[in-house]
Amino acid sequence: MSKPVSRREFLNLIAATGGVATVLGIGGALGLIPASTSASVPNLMALNGQRKRVVILGGGISGLTTAYELGKAGYDCTVLEASHRCGGRVMTLRHGDLIDEIGNPQICQFDDEPHLYFNCGAARIPSSHRNVLNYCKELGVELEMFINENKHALVHDPELNGGKPMRNIDISTNLKGFMGELMFKGFSNAELDQPFSDAEAEKLLAVIRQFGDLNADGRYAGSSRNGYAEGGFISDGVQREMINIRDLLKADTGLLRSVLLENEGETAPMLMQPTGGMDNIIKGFTRQLDGKIEYHAMVAGVYDHGNMVHVLYDKDGERHRLEADYVFNCIPAHLMVGIDANFPEEYRTAMKQIRRGEAFKGAFQMKQRFWEDEEIYGGITWTNQPIRQIWYPFHGLLKQKGVMLAAYDYGGGSGFMRMTHEERIEAMLTQGEKIHPQYREMAEHGVTIAWHRMNHMLGCSARWGAMTAENEAHYNTLQQPSGRHYFIGDQISRKAAWMESAIQSAHWAMAHMDQRVRAEAGV
Amino acid sequence: MSKPVSRREFLNLIAATGGVATVLGIGGALGLIPASTSASVPNLMALNGQRKRVVILGGGISGLTTAYELGKAGYDCTVLEASHRCGGRVMTLRHGDLIDEIGNPQICQFDDEPHLYFNCGAARIPSSHRNVLNYCKELGVELEMFINENKHALVHDPELNGGKPMRNIDISTNLKGFMGELMFKGFSNAELDQPFSDAEAEKLLAVIRQFGDLNADGRYAGSSRNGYAEGGFISDGVQREMINIRDLLKADTGLLRSVLLENEGETAPMLMQPTGGMDNIIKGFTRQLDGKIEYHAMVAGVYDHGNMVHVLYDKDGERHRLEADYVFNCIPAHLMVGIDANFPEEYRTAMKQIRRGEAFKGAFQMKQRFWEDEEIYGGITWTNQPIRQIWYPFHGLLKQKGVMLAAYDYGGGSGFMRMTHEERIEAMLTQGEKIHPQYREMAEHGVTIAWHRMNHMLGCSARWGAMTAENEAHYNTLQQPSGRHYFIGDQISRKAAWMESAIQSAHWAMAHMDQRVRAEAGV
Repeated sequence: MSKPVSRREFLNLIAATGGVATVLGIGGALGLIPASTSASVPNLMALNGQRKRVVILGGGISGLTTAYELGKAGYDCTVLEASHRCGGRVMTLRHGDLIDEIGNPQICQFDDEPHLYFNCGAARIPSSHRNVLNYCKELGVELEMFINENKHALVHDPELNGGKPMRNIDISTNLKGFMGELMFKGFSNAELDQPFSDAEAEKLLAVIRQFGDLNADGRYAGSSRNGYAEGGFISDGVQREMINIRDLLKADTGLLRSVLLENEGETAPMLMQPTGGMDNIIKGFTRQLDGKIEYHAMVAGVYDHGNMVHVLYDKDGERHRLEADYVFNCIPAHLMVGIDANFPEEYRTAMKQIRRGEAFKGAFQMKQRFWEDEEIYGGITWTNQPIRQIWYPFHGLLKQKGVMLAAYDYGGGSGFMRMTHEERIEAMLTQGEKIHPQYREMAEHGVTIAWHRMNHMLGCSARWGAMTAENEAHYNTLQQPSGRHYFIGDQISRKAAWMESAIQSAHWAMAHMDQRVRAEAGV
Repeated sequence: MSKPVSRREFLNLIAATGGVATVLGIGGALGLIPASTSASVPNLMALNGQRKRVVILGGGISGLTTAYELGKAGYDCTVLEASHRCGGRVMTLRHGDLIDEIGNPQICQFDDEPHLYFNCGAARIPSSHRNVLNYCKELGVELEMFINENKHALVHDPELNGGKPMRNIDISTNLKGFMGELMFKGFSNAELDQPFSDAEAEKLLAVIRQFGDLNADGRYAGSSRNGYAEGGFISDGVQREMINIRDLLKADTGLLRSVLLENEGETAPMLMQPTGGMDNIIKGFTRQLDGKIEYHAMVAGVYDHGNMVHVLYDKDGERHRLEADYVFNCIPAHLMVGIDANFPEEYRTAMKQIRRGEAFKGAFQMKQRFWEDEEIYGGITWTNQPIRQIWYPFHGLLKQKGVMLAAYDYGGGSGFMRMTHEERIEAMLTQGEKIHPQYREMAEHGVTIAWHRMNHMLGCSARWGAMTAENEAHYNTLQQPSGRHYFIGDQISRKAAWMESAIQSAHWAMAHMDQRVRAEAGV
């Protein structure tokens, strides 16, 4: 059994070859746009005819990134993908597609139209995810805006407004009004740590008044920021009634948080999506990997021999053997534990630490885009029912039909996973019609997907849990190679569930390997 | 001289024919989407072969709406447009287009590509502007999202951060942190008007902590909501430094307001724009009005004779005369004052009350979309320099070039109007490069437009000023017809500058006329 390259050895390697800046360098070659400093694609040494064989286990986005980049540098790559498709949790459902959930296989019955698709896994690209965006550009994947926050979408809680959904903007406007009053009081009455000049205090109070739409004396008495009850164009607008804070406080804390904060963090604007479906990114990669991907190839063994590594896999009832200089592996570690390999014990122990999320998503094709008639164009409606969210598609605007996300349970506690497909559909309808009365009548061709039961994955995003010293050690162990074997994927990142993390993990591993190749070549 | 129909007479007419609900009714016939209750298009009585001639003065969007709707009902319509184009302040500049500013005519030099255009007038459609959206659907105008707010865009003030632009999200996150602290203090220390139960108080404090990203004890110490200074995917994210409130308060109050509130009111999400340019709406109308529009037709006189109205206009050096049953007029009232007409004195006095905005807009074609390399995708950068705003185009994402709004002075106080074209361009460059160092190098083919000098318009949106009793009376006078003459356009609305207002004014006037036609017909 070979010994993993230690962190110290790696640092020595890097020192010997010019430092990490030369490796984790600049995207480059991305057309006319100057390369980004946050792009992480490594400047791999081109092999120039030297033969290096790489086997990539799994056709998730980290595996495809690896095959694509190493292919450009002259490596001979093979991707072994167990499923009938690449992409892993980057998956788009369209007319006729198989949902390969164990015990619940479905064929998607959406109408066969370009705008009728469902991104049942990855669904959003934040604008800070530079590597994903760079690949979209490089691979010719057209992007459009994804609408996450829409103040005209709804909030539903049985305790709020007698169970009748409220517009997000009606809650947020009134909540901010009350908050503004609190700030005003806080500023006026409390002893502040910082002394403000009169000019500063005046400015701050002006900003607070603006924030809450307060009167000059710091009182909130309703606002027209949430639109008029009627009129506004030809006749004067009639202000909506002010909503008392106590009525708003009947809502679930999580929902109030969503109303105030959906605009923050990783899902803050701007978010994007590929026009026509998230898997256009996968297709962008696979177009470049013609003949290099083996589908229905089940990995049966991975054995590092110090100077090479060999991989066994089963396909069409036969066992195959590949020899490689390096192996990159995005098979979920909790599945890899069950596959024969000669990993060191420390590595194997670490593999067992990565738990997996149990996200559930469901969607309906809707016969009519009834939400647009309620002035909702894209965005999320929040509810504290188990479905949690409804996503209104913006794409296909003003067309007849649309595919709506009808449930997104990322907590795993809702019981959707234990239901049959029919029970899930009924639960989605029952909960959905509490928000939109016409929901059941409009819904057709429902799909449901429980990621922890999806074939060849058996889990959603990696979950490391709290980064205790022990977990930190395990993480470091798995980030380092075991001999010539590298783990990649969002499982080897600090921000699981994002394509960007999976891609950066592949970049990191390739940069590490590149150092070894350069060292061997004496450059 | 004929007497205008009074409000009372109009109400009597309505009472006689079934009430306003039958008139200001439902959009209907908009395909499969149920008609909206907020659509204002009137249910006009079809003429069924009865001949009624209507002359429409001005091919702005209210005039085109009138010609389109009356045409559907069987009216014989002619639009007299003084300019070479319809649309008025709905104007899109592309390669080769004339900017007909008096004393500053320009031909737009943008490259001839579909994504290189500039909406130099109307540029945003709020999702609550139902009539605009309905016409887009009805006329086959494809829509896409317009990105107004982008927390990754910048804020610039010479007093703030030593004049170096800051990201909007860095200001808003830290400002909210301080505001959260104030609320916490306000809640803890001040006497509240409403007594809260323990559960309510706990919930409110939780929401406040979430709002500001505060510690459990109500303190703000920085946040990761504005992204990490580095890392976050493969390595742990490093939090950005907290910014002191006193440093933020160096910014202009208006800028701080923009940071906190650009998400509110009429320009709150969702905003839309026609794919390819705002004037696709105009083209949508004019496609339906083939042969009904006279261009270069200068109205010279409007004379109401009680049973008909006649219009004089000059075209190709000749005077023409048209007789009509009704005239709808969207010529700006302050220009109409100078055109011969037999309006009653009260009407003429009211016309003189409508002032006009002096908005200025400028744009550059940019050689590269450098903003996307700074992770800015669409949205607005705010500055307290005279240019006020920079708008980054989202359309054309990842292409090489883009057309950027480089100045938008809606206040009229900046002096841009009094500059030559060359001086304006230089001012836009000088101010722009304070925000983006590469600005001057990247900018090409600048266009500038001062709306109060635009030929045939001589002003931007109507400005009624405060609605004093006197102005209210004038408004009512002009909303009512003078005999068979109706004023339309955003000048006859409570929310000038929006296409929706112009359209609703046309709907209102047509509904009024329809009542008269029905009364005459005895139905």
